[in-house]
Amino acid sequence: MTDPLTTGATIGILGGGQLGRMLSVAASRLGFRTCIFEPGADCPASHVANRHIQAPYEDERALRDFAASVDVITYEFENIPTSALDILEALKPVHPDRIALRVSQDRMVEKAFLNDLGLQTAPFAAVDDPADLARAMSEIGLPAILKTRRFGYDGKGQARIINPEDTDQALMDMAGAPAILEGFVDFTHEVSVIGARNTAGDVSCFDPGENVHEGGILRTTTIPARLSAAQRTDAVLLAGKILNKLDYVGVMGVELFVTTDGLIVNEIAPRVHNSGHWTQQGCSVDQFEQHIRAVAGWPLGDGSRHTDVVMENLIGDDMDRVPDLARDPAVSLHLYGKAEVKEGRKMGHANRVITKP
Amino acid sequence: MTDPLTTGATIGILGGGQLGRMLSVAASRLGFRTCIFEPGADCPASHVANRHIQAPYEDERALRDFAASVDVITYEFENIPTSALDILEALKPVHPDRIALRVSQDRMVEKAFLNDLGLQTAPFAAVDDPADLARAMSEIGLPAILKTRRFGYDGKGQARIINPEDTDQALMDMAGAPAILEGFVDFTHEVSVIGARNTAGDVSCFDPGENVHEGGILRTTTIPARLSAAQRTDAVLLAGKILNKLDYVGVMGVELFVTTDGLIVNEIAPRVHNSGHWTQQGCSVDQFEQHIRAVAGWPLGDGSRHTDVVMENLIGDDMDRVPDLARDPAVSLHLYGKAEVKEGRKMGHANRVITKP
Repeated sequence: MTDPLTTGATIGILGGGQLGRMLSVAASRLGFRTCIFEPGADCPASHVANRHIQAPYEDERALRDFAASVDVITYEFENIPTSALDILEALKPVHPDRIALRVSQDRMVEKAFLNDLGLQTAPFAAVDDPADLARAMSEIGLPAILKTRRFGYDGKGQARIINPEDTDQALMDMAGAPAILEGFVDFTHEVSVIGARNTAGDVSCFDPGENVHEGGILRTTTIPARLSAAQRTDAVLLAGKILNKLDYVGVMGVELFVTTDGLIVNEIAPRVHNSGHWTQQGCSVDQFEQHIRAVAGWPLGDGSRHTDVVMENLIGDDMDRVPDLARDPAVSLHLYGKAEVKEGRKMGHANRVITKP
Repeated sequence: MTDPLTTGATIGILGGGQLGRMLSVAASRLGFRTCIFEPGADCPASHVANRHIQAPYEDERALRDFAASVDVITYEFENIPTSALDILEALKPVHPDRIALRVSQDRMVEKAFLNDLGLQTAPFAAVDDPADLARAMSEIGLPAILKTRRFGYDGKGQARIINPEDTDQALMDMAGAPAILEGFVDFTHEVSVIGARNTAGDVSCFDPGENVHEGGILRTTTIPARLSAAQRTDAVLLAGKILNKLDYVGVMGVELFVTTDGLIVNEIAPRVHNSGHWTQQGCSVDQFEQHIRAVAGWPLGDGSRHTDVVMENLIGDDMDRVPDLARDPAVSLHLYGKAEVKEGRKMGHANRVITKP
């Protein structure tokens, strides 16, 4: 276990989107400075950081400069090139570490890891060519979903196969990338657990939230999720199992399908997670501060929920609703300062506090 | 009434201390950028701002650059030189405006303004020389307190006069600055009201908090304050009266002495106030966001208190307690990122949420 970082230490964050932005604000509350590494100019995180190093992830000199100017390194997205990680982890601690990244960057490795832990996933098979796909379909059955093994997010890199005629288009959608065929899971709803583990090995999980997606993008998270007490316990236990097995440090998002046969792990994300934004209004320590505490070697905060919340993403033109939302006494707004509104772009979110009757 | 600012607009903040820091974070939540004007290097607000213009308040070119790069100007302290204000307000809206500054910068003007409004203050008289002081003492009586009319904060620029022999030392303490003699007020405790008013003229006040000072510096604010329902109403009404009379835009701190003869106004501060830090944990919209909403032409947020809180300032060596405070599940920490711990220096604060039995 490392010594906890103290006021004035610098947290390095790879990626400068809204997650990096809210991590940076959380770091400031604990007296830390932040340095953002992000290829894009004028990124949301840079607005609230001490420094923004604008360089591609292939720029070794910039990566060394970044490592030299920070005390610990973390990230807001899991698709960090291995070459960048090789350079950085030789110079400064990186949390979560490369084992967590290796597992979560590849859907095949991820599912095999989860099955090895005794956790249920959708049935799956690797697909590198048409012959693989034919074999996988006969094994798993249809409908199924073909996904790239890496770099998928918000429904990108996915193709549904309802009938055998869909296979050619689905393979084309993969554009030659290694893929995985996943069987459809007959689930009633999706929930996620935001778990945290620190350098001392303490584990703490926020209450599970219930997610609704639209067009592959998270639309709302509602707390509490519809779960029985047994399911709730299951969800937290399996998240703890994953965190401990990986000797994980930081916050992780674990997406779960709720089925009549129990909880099925959809995917894990080695970072703060969109479905954990409700914690900003629901808990005294939110997921962003929890993550900073973990990577800084601090004790975890108390993530108890004091209020029910519905988190709603503001996507694209939803920004037109901001004036009305600003007038709603139950709503806390979190806007990301993105200059341009685009269709499907996450512009902010609104946490609606639910007062019990 | 001006059009509300939208995502991407820039809030200019004069002063880069902890108040500017927390204003900057609140501005980011609403999608705004911030530019800090502050003579000191590496100031707390600069860690979470888009830009820091480091220049003295006498630097006209820097002031013009500042005004050109922002959409609205506000400040974290009331002692802004008039010359700087002359330049800035010709270029961009400044909230709160110079009338609020003129009233609150000078204890004589402030008290006369309050009395004209029908509000009670301590008895007072101007003191420019020994003859004034003798006259004032015979009028007001002893004990009394001699204060510089301007630039006093945290108990600085004040001298108590208990016996007539204290007068020479008290006058020396003023160092020739224009002063005011104030009679002692026989109060049971001090409370403060944090009020807000926006460009549409809407007024909203947070619940009054009860303040305890040590050595002239605020030590704790406890919510709710010990006040009867009538006193609570009085406190809010008089704050509203002040805000409306000044046609004020922004958040104001109003310090009140509680006496058996009613509430006596101690002083007003035309800015977010240390005694309002509890709102970060007690309300869904805190004083910093409320101030940004007001100066940005937004509707005010709902400042209802959902939780009781004790705010404690972390001053100087109190920082040694941070590891213990970080482990306390009832405490939310707010550290200011100041590099050097000094005696009497405000390094952060801890908001302790009080759970009712």
